[in-house]
Amino acid sequence: MRIEIICTGDEVLSGKITNTNFSYMAQRLEDAGLAVAWETTVGDDRTNLLEAFRLAAARADAVIVNGGLGPTVDDLSQEIAAEAAGVQLVLHQPWLERMERFFRERGRVMSPNNRKQAMLPEGAEMLDNPIGTACGFALTIGKARFFFTPGVPRELRRMLEEQIIPRLLEKAGEPGVIRLKRFHSYGLGESHVDQLLAGVEALAPEGAVKLGFRAHYPQIETKLTVRGKDEADVAAKLAPVAAEIRRRLGNFIVAEDDQTLETVILGRLHALRASLALVETYTAGQIAGRIVHFTGAERVFRRGIVARDAAQIADAVGMAPWDGPVTEEIAGTAARAIRKSARADVGMAVLVDLEDPMAEGNSFAGVIWTALTSDAGHGVRRSRIAGGREWVRLGAVELGLDCLRRHLLGLPLWERTDFERA
Amino acid sequence: MRIEIICTGDEVLSGKITNTNFSYMAQRLEDAGLAVAWETTVGDDRTNLLEAFRLAAARADAVIVNGGLGPTVDDLSQEIAAEAAGVQLVLHQPWLERMERFFRERGRVMSPNNRKQAMLPEGAEMLDNPIGTACGFALTIGKARFFFTPGVPRELRRMLEEQIIPRLLEKAGEPGVIRLKRFHSYGLGESHVDQLLAGVEALAPEGAVKLGFRAHYPQIETKLTVRGKDEADVAAKLAPVAAEIRRRLGNFIVAEDDQTLETVILGRLHALRASLALVETYTAGQIAGRIVHFTGAERVFRRGIVARDAAQIADAVGMAPWDGPVTEEIAGTAARAIRKSARADVGMAVLVDLEDPMAEGNSFAGVIWTALTSDAGHGVRRSRIAGGREWVRLGAVELGLDCLRRHLLGLPLWERTDFERA
Repeated sequence: MRIEIICTGDEVLSGKITNTNFSYMAQRLEDAGLAVAWETTVGDDRTNLLEAFRLAAARADAVIVNGGLGPTVDDLSQEIAAEAAGVQLVLHQPWLERMERFFRERGRVMSPNNRKQAMLPEGAEMLDNPIGTACGFALTIGKARFFFTPGVPRELRRMLEEQIIPRLLEKAGEPGVIRLKRFHSYGLGESHVDQLLAGVEALAPEGAVKLGFRAHYPQIETKLTVRGKDEADVAAKLAPVAAEIRRRLGNFIVAEDDQTLETVILGRLHALRASLALVETYTAGQIAGRIVHFTGAERVFRRGIVARDAAQIADAVGMAPWDGPVTEEIAGTAARAIRKSARADVGMAVLVDLEDPMAEGNSFAGVIWTALTSDAGHGVRRSRIAGGREWVRLGAVELGLDCLRRHLLGLPLWERTDFERA
Repeated sequence: MRIEIICTGDEVLSGKITNTNFSYMAQRLEDAGLAVAWETTVGDDRTNLLEAFRLAAARADAVIVNGGLGPTVDDLSQEIAAEAAGVQLVLHQPWLERMERFFRERGRVMSPNNRKQAMLPEGAEMLDNPIGTACGFALTIGKARFFFTPGVPRELRRMLEEQIIPRLLEKAGEPGVIRLKRFHSYGLGESHVDQLLAGVEALAPEGAVKLGFRAHYPQIETKLTVRGKDEADVAAKLAPVAAEIRRRLGNFIVAEDDQTLETVILGRLHALRASLALVETYTAGQIAGRIVHFTGAERVFRRGIVARDAAQIADAVGMAPWDGPVTEEIAGTAARAIRKSARADVGMAVLVDLEDPMAEGNSFAGVIWTALTSDAGHGVRRSRIAGGREWVRLGAVELGLDCLRRHLLGLPLWERTDFERA
């Protein structure tokens, strides 16, 4: 089945908005075992819209059109869809009533131009939008089934999930259930993960499990798309593959599915009823910045200190100042001192020595000392990361958070990552 | 002149990579007074590539193709370009030599498959890539001039700037010089800025200055595209418009052109030889995180404290703890205390009281107390921002940074922004 996507709107075509709706749709379809063959972006322009619809109608089996369902004059999707299909626009009375109720419930008066949003091409199937006024619709144009979706991301996402993917899977004649399983790892590069996981798909019947990756430094997401006849069948096919992935990636897996490194850390702190204090240098407060703003963080986060020089750190945490490079002992002392001064259960120090603060590009490198201390134990890890300024900083932030996770879970602090250099 | 863009590659088509190359190109062309009429994305697939090239060749005057110039077998751009143009691929000897030198200078051996990157369609004009091995080229296919560019963003950007935009402007018969002038403002919404600047284009001869906006909450970028016959002409046309924009947006302009709010703050601290210490709460260290990692920040940044409860803040900065909501006096005391304890020239406190930490969506609101103190003066600003959790946090971070800028520049701390609610 050939699927195409058409994105519409001057803001997307002019690059004013980066087209994340497209990448989201393409990824979600891939996760559901479907592939996009072609994408077109056109502006709010009658001639180009009509041409784009006609070309896709002649090439594809299914087309998702995004945007152009709003109430204003430059929202043209319904009108051009009707023209391309050779039908009239007709009022969809149930949707008009839904919109009127939508506004009434919010204590607002519906503007007359919203009525336009209930005008659908004759014969179109309405696609529900429970959270907005732009109703989606499906319509056959040429040889393709077109699905028209709103531009607002959360409305699009819900409609794609609840209305469109089920229809596409049915059209493709796919088996009943598809599930996406995700593993988030830190410390291994994409090609390394790929190599470590060679052959895991073979632990399920042929074609039942498909493996994929998505890298966003310094984490890698490993994705399994699992097909089966029902939920139990999917679970049975997934189990041996998931177990083997956990075995091979081991402690490098920081979270699964909707969990993140941050939520795992906060969950563990909450479970242990443990509080945290930390001191960081070159990471600029960004380790704290990743966890402190979550709901409930105020119950476990005591204090964070950021400074760029030794005298300030020493003074802020209450330890003797030092000269020269950071050592294992200095990092450990800093972790103990911040723990004590903030009266926290867990103390953490991430102290970075830049080799040459003025270096550019790949010759920019830093030695990162990460120290963790609590009643459960005390550990210090030395790492060296080289790369651009941002690369080192992002790497140090993630390394610090990962060490914290390891400490809270009783895992070894030190396992060599692909990002460290001798 | 009709311009189309074709993006190629499975990683872009599958959504694994968000297509920022496209939005970058479209914006840069718009800044140069050129518009994109149509965009197509296809994967590394011969049939679809050829079809995309043929369709664009029949519709457009100029086409930019991005990606597919690498050394591997799935990089197909040269080959399909030759097929679409009905010509052969021929070895471009000068580029082969350039590549050999490129590898030699880096102490590496060129792999045999890199030779493929020097095979260009017969009659193609080479487009220089001074920073990579993928050479660009221009070729006429059908009625359109095609420009083939590498997928690596920094190589693409440089080639677009130095090689392609000048050729497009020449083809479009545009006057000699186009310049982009940018103003970054904080505190005014896009429609408000639009309304404040109504008519400014008329201060230059008709069509010489074009006004545009790009919003990325909470900042707005106001862009002027200025055309003229030479640099002096452009400067003369720009001057009255730029002066009027500075007058109308006033203190809300935080930076111009390549400057940012952060670099303006750091520049001012360096110029004053002043050091900074700050304490922040719900903003989670992200105010410090925006400025501490810059080169040279270690010379002006003393210390940052982040905590979520009053007792911790009080203890960390050395002031008496408080009960109940933050007041003007508490915020001011915190700024003075952190200034004193860190022995900094400027002390800053950004203390946020969330009205209901468990609220969701738009009922999530916070009162933000921002206090600044230095030898130059002392001021406290109270603001209330309502919206989602992220909206309030991003708003508070920007507000804090803007107050710091205002304090350092001797501007009034308080001017009502569009993001504040009573």
